[in-house]
Amino acid sequence: MTITSRDVARLAGVSQPTVSRALRGDARVSAATRERVQRAAQALGYVTSEAGRSLVTRRTHRVGTVVTDLANPFYPHLVGPLHDALEGHGYRMMMFAERSDAALASERLVDGSLDGVVLMTSTIDSALPAELTRHGMPFVFLNRDVGEGSGDAAVVDNTLGGRLAATLVADLGHRHVGGIFGPPDTTTGREREYGFRLALAERGLAVAADAVRHGPFEFETGHRLLAEVLAARPRPTAVFCGSDAIAIGALNAALAAGVRVPQELTVVGFDDIPMASWESFRLTTVSHDLKEMVAGATRLLLDRIEAARAPEDSGAREQGPRSAPRRVVSVPHLVERGTHGPPPA
Amino acid sequence: MTITSRDVARLAGVSQPTVSRALRGDARVSAATRERVQRAAQALGYVTSEAGRSLVTRRTHRVGTVVTDLANPFYPHLVGPLHDALEGHGYRMMMFAERSDAALASERLVDGSLDGVVLMTSTIDSALPAELTRHGMPFVFLNRDVGEGSGDAAVVDNTLGGRLAATLVADLGHRHVGGIFGPPDTTTGREREYGFRLALAERGLAVAADAVRHGPFEFETGHRLLAEVLAARPRPTAVFCGSDAIAIGALNAALAAGVRVPQELTVVGFDDIPMASWESFRLTTVSHDLKEMVAGATRLLLDRIEAARAPEDSGAREQGPRSAPRRVVSVPHLVERGTHGPPPA
Repeated sequence: MTITSRDVARLAGVSQPTVSRALRGDARVSAATRERVQRAAQALGYVTSEAGRSLVTRRTHRVGTVVTDLANPFYPHLVGPLHDALEGHGYRMMMFAERSDAALASERLVDGSLDGVVLMTSTIDSALPAELTRHGMPFVFLNRDVGEGSGDAAVVDNTLGGRLAATLVADLGHRHVGGIFGPPDTTTGREREYGFRLALAERGLAVAADAVRHGPFEFETGHRLLAEVLAARPRPTAVFCGSDAIAIGALNAALAAGVRVPQELTVVGFDDIPMASWESFRLTTVSHDLKEMVAGATRLLLDRIEAARAPEDSGAREQGPRSAPRRVVSVPHLVERGTHGPPPA
Repeated sequence: MTITSRDVARLAGVSQPTVSRALRGDARVSAATRERVQRAAQALGYVTSEAGRSLVTRRTHRVGTVVTDLANPFYPHLVGPLHDALEGHGYRMMMFAERSDAALASERLVDGSLDGVVLMTSTIDSALPAELTRHGMPFVFLNRDVGEGSGDAAVVDNTLGGRLAATLVADLGHRHVGGIFGPPDTTTGREREYGFRLALAERGLAVAADAVRHGPFEFETGHRLLAEVLAARPRPTAVFCGSDAIAIGALNAALAAGVRVPQELTVVGFDDIPMASWESFRLTTVSHDLKEMVAGATRLLLDRIEAARAPEDSGAREQGPRSAPRRVVSVPHLVERGTHGPPPA
């Protein structure tokens, strides 16, 4: 015997349409009713056909997330909060782990199995945002975007963050400053570098060209490139790193080379991932509120999904696929721990 | 105008069935043809309906992976290799990040959108493996299983790994030994502890009851519990940790407490994640080959998927959903770095 939604309705004591609504997480169904229906469905071993359902309702209550920086320790810290935020609105999260946006055929994201997409690791040259826009697929940038106006985005004020790092370093009296920045094809890489250089310039300081390197937001980047930055003459006494992962790589390279931090070298990071506060590192860094950023991205995406499904003539269309992109920008602040100090005398 | 597979076929110069086969990654289509078809489909903006397709062919070329230990730094290191291994066989990976197996309604995994499932973080009491078996959904355990016979599994010989740690500690002359083990409801937690205790016992040694703690495979576990273990009397001079994450938490706690490693305390981990080799830690640990384990899991799962779809009377049914579970077991080895030494005099 095949269990149908009619059987579930009978057991739960509700109508058959209510079963369908409850199981697809429709907001018109109360939490209590939804739970009753879910328990009845479970008791009967009733399995909804996701595939069949999506053809009928065009609604899957699934949100896809794209992560391409598989070696970047920052993203795992976004996954938990994002999962919880989406689940709180009845959405399940499917992660697409890829080596690059280009490796992810946009086809996979617009094949009808998703209601929306969260882009976490887009590069500036990524074709994915335009592809999603072309297909009318709601999406939001989280943490990284590809420039203002390209889509809804929840990001940090990276330029301000870079400025905060520069201000600290300049106020401590450092005159020879280096940088190990993130990839120039990411907004996070670009803007943090820009803010840092800008605030230094306002104080009559500059980063010497031979004291600057760029690389992926990974431990290896800082670990490999610190020696090159410290080879600049005059030797830099402070290095700003584009992320905590890079900074912690640099701290380990300093340890290996016998360069004492902060006595001989100041190191400043960006992100304030949990590792930054470990006793082994006590990294001074630019901190921002991950949960706030995740909440912002979730709100923007759900608004966009609602609007995309609203009738053409309803007010909600104002936030529809064609409406102007919105941005939620988190304000970062400096966390002073143990890796900064005045330049050596 | 709606683009159909017929249009793609015309542009690619192949038959319409070949287009369907190529786009669903059928192995009978050569790589060159598949690429030609994909380029044609892309040029025309042709989007296959995943939902429609799965109803017809019951094949999605998607594999789901379940990760519940969102704060465990071990899993991100499995994701990259698993992605690459699956992609090499034409499968895309969808990750379900959940707070527990129980939070993941098995419905989500058997709704027709997946061909198979990789379980990475099952606990011994998890109902998910039995649920998947009941629905005839092919799955494999990766790294952790729920006991022999419960399903195909690619795991490490955790008991041997625990023995290796005990042998090192005993041979160094430690007589007072503590342990911060993983969760008792995981096979990795249990077996590593069992192997460690067994090898100690063979040498006439034992872990004092008040020098043993258990907790999640996370930094916080070691960080929080080291002080309790070191409060045992006689005070332990060596501590075996159930994972590198726990061990690195313990190292940081030792640093905070002014306990010198390895002069006053030997710390041994398990997994050999990249962080273990960082200069800040130089963790002595039990190492195993992640790529080998991932390759084993991929092979087992794909065999099971093929068999599940083979005709009832074909030989492949021997490896069908009802055939006996198979296990691929990796052999671990000890990596001696800087956190072990003889007990203080």
